[in-house]
Amino acid sequence: MAEHNPAPQIVHSRLDNGMEIVVIPDHRAPVVTHMVWYRNGSADDPPLKSGIAHFLEHLMFKGTAKHPKGQFQQLIADLGGQENAFTSYDYTSYFQRLPREHLATCMEYEADRMRNLVLTDEVVAPERDVVLEERRMRTDSDPQAELSEAVQAALFQHHPYGEPVIGWAHEIETLNRADALAYYQRFYTPENAILIVAGDVTPQEVETLARETYGAIPARGAAPVRTRPQEPPQRAHRLVSLADEKVEQPAFERCYLAPSAVTAPAGEAEALEVMTHVLGGGQTSRLYRTLVHERQVAVAAGAYYMTPSVDMTRLWVYGVPAPSVSLEEFGAAVDAVIADFLKAPVSENELNRSRNRLIADSIYARDNQTSLAHWYGAALACGETVADVAGWAERIEKVTAEDVLRVARRWLDKRSAVTGYLMPQEQAA
Amino acid sequence: MAEHNPAPQIVHSRLDNGMEIVVIPDHRAPVVTHMVWYRNGSADDPPLKSGIAHFLEHLMFKGTAKHPKGQFQQLIADLGGQENAFTSYDYTSYFQRLPREHLATCMEYEADRMRNLVLTDEVVAPERDVVLEERRMRTDSDPQAELSEAVQAALFQHHPYGEPVIGWAHEIETLNRADALAYYQRFYTPENAILIVAGDVTPQEVETLARETYGAIPARGAAPVRTRPQEPPQRAHRLVSLADEKVEQPAFERCYLAPSAVTAPAGEAEALEVMTHVLGGGQTSRLYRTLVHERQVAVAAGAYYMTPSVDMTRLWVYGVPAPSVSLEEFGAAVDAVIADFLKAPVSENELNRSRNRLIADSIYARDNQTSLAHWYGAALACGETVADVAGWAERIEKVTAEDVLRVARRWLDKRSAVTGYLMPQEQAA
Repeated sequence: MAEHNPAPQIVHSRLDNGMEIVVIPDHRAPVVTHMVWYRNGSADDPPLKSGIAHFLEHLMFKGTAKHPKGQFQQLIADLGGQENAFTSYDYTSYFQRLPREHLATCMEYEADRMRNLVLTDEVVAPERDVVLEERRMRTDSDPQAELSEAVQAALFQHHPYGEPVIGWAHEIETLNRADALAYYQRFYTPENAILIVAGDVTPQEVETLARETYGAIPARGAAPVRTRPQEPPQRAHRLVSLADEKVEQPAFERCYLAPSAVTAPAGEAEALEVMTHVLGGGQTSRLYRTLVHERQVAVAAGAYYMTPSVDMTRLWVYGVPAPSVSLEEFGAAVDAVIADFLKAPVSENELNRSRNRLIADSIYARDNQTSLAHWYGAALACGETVADVAGWAERIEKVTAEDVLRVARRWLDKRSAVTGYLMPQEQAA
Repeated sequence: MAEHNPAPQIVHSRLDNGMEIVVIPDHRAPVVTHMVWYRNGSADDPPLKSGIAHFLEHLMFKGTAKHPKGQFQQLIADLGGQENAFTSYDYTSYFQRLPREHLATCMEYEADRMRNLVLTDEVVAPERDVVLEERRMRTDSDPQAELSEAVQAALFQHHPYGEPVIGWAHEIETLNRADALAYYQRFYTPENAILIVAGDVTPQEVETLARETYGAIPARGAAPVRTRPQEPPQRAHRLVSLADEKVEQPAFERCYLAPSAVTAPAGEAEALEVMTHVLGGGQTSRLYRTLVHERQVAVAAGAYYMTPSVDMTRLWVYGVPAPSVSLEEFGAAVDAVIADFLKAPVSENELNRSRNRLIADSIYARDNQTSLAHWYGAALACGETVADVAGWAERIEKVTAEDVLRVARRWLDKRSAVTGYLMPQEQAA
């Protein structure tokens, strides 16, 4: 295990206009990571406007009167910095990493586009075409992405997590300036935003700068409330099969409905993390050992749990069958591994290895300024607290083999799951 | 074929407040069928309020200041009449059948509850419990209904036809007086209603009575516009499996996305009707002959096309496997029948038999005053015209074997379909 810093002294505060501030001091290098997280993602897209959260993320790069298009990006580039933005189901976020002395400038620019974004038809219409092309490239030309989209749509009968983050093409096509403006005005407000600054700064510096920049934006009122349709109980397994001539290697995915760190009772999300790791984390996991090494029916197999989520989330089991193994045979082999897994508590050895590995991974993440800032941002945007994140490793330590068995039996339930088959064209015929 | 009346002289008009009137004279007996159709069904339920269209249907029986609860029903019963109400995806309708001399009274009562429904907490809260119990009885205790609900939810990734008409229990539980009142005020308006009167009346009589009753209700403005999320293209087959100890006989259903009489290009819905009949209408159909008689893998098999629908609709193929035939084997047998069906045009004999049978059925329906009124009401509520309905048989006559093959090849596509398996508990284990 690498040496690591002690847990950083994180300071969490709030501006008068409602904007949250989280400062994560890290003085190892004279750089800062600056992030603004908005508590709105694709699951908050209004009816008939799927994709608008992601579309706004694009439009946020179109400039203001003070800083026309490209100026912010040029600044970051000139300073040797990095920047990015991403939209997920529950949040949209913008980040820059740059030398510490330019933090004030960066904040001034980011605050400016929170308030003064220029949205004209000249800007909106061409960017809509860019997004449509992005969808064509990343989803509609990629059978794996198409399958995942169909699996999510089948998993969520009612909750908007069943809608793709990028939106459905026929609705993206209709997004216009009025939609973008209404969305921007509703969600891009200080009450709805979280500022995360990690790096070579003090909380006092950050708060002073934040007051001068973000603090100058008037509050609009209460933050938007997320009122989303929730999933009804599920009782039927769904199998989604997609065949495409572009597929060279068949693939298997199983997506289970599962509680998130926000919705689960105390300890259950942590037990799910450990459970997922024992089952499918790395080459010592049950799935990998059994399917790849012992039975040799797979060339890859694993599991993944998507923990930060405002509402019910998903837990995946996935794999690639060995040549000559059909997807049906592979699925039966996965089911057998899981049936065996549900029979008895995991061994002390498995439990310790997974808990240690998860904690070590979190220490590596903590060691990286940007990934730590990202961790806090995503968690807070989904409704967790700074204390929740800070206490995560301690809670993972406490997970027992009985906890793991209990959540496995409760949630590895095919009745609230979807299986996806990705198939070459000839296999479907 | 039974003797039948000539096509009735249907008169279609509109009151000043926007309410449509359709009169279908039928003088064989001194009775009338009186129906009011509202152009709102479950697919128009607002977000988080699934089930409210159906809930309002219940509440419409709760009385007004002038005619308290039960009085309307007592009146119909005293007159030896019948009444009913139903909610579908696209409409809600109310009907009475009674002696012709009481039509004026009936219209007075129906117009009264279009405008003056009393919605107090005392009325709304207990009725919500009635609906929840209805859901528990009809859906949650009936595995076939649960499967159908899950199949629809999987078929529609985005369109609200994926939501059950009765609503999801956890949302029905939240429906309150304010929701009901807002819904009533939005949708129970003359602009949104269609009056259908069939029976021993003249159009002049009906219009005079309608002006005095419904015509006294002021227009509220424009009729509500249906702006519903539409389905994206589909490329993945979905298989939904539900196992329950209450299941004694396994069952198979396949639900294809298909255009409706409203959304299809000219002639396509008619070709789909003929195609569905050749494939699965009755014991001479391809499915029944092949699966029940020849291969003896089924005890039942058929197909059904749900034609009147505002948006994309569904076409079902269904069956019950013979004992010892698994659902997988049965599904493969269905697929083989369909693959054969797509190879060549249907025979002249099959084509003629199906066209004749569909037309004969429509003549029987026309012969029944209530079913004819229902036909017109559902069609008009979904956006068809009186001329569309009146010309239906003539269009069916024109369907060719090539038309049938073309729509079969286009729409019997598993990539835009869901298969449902209903299984006894032991079969799933």
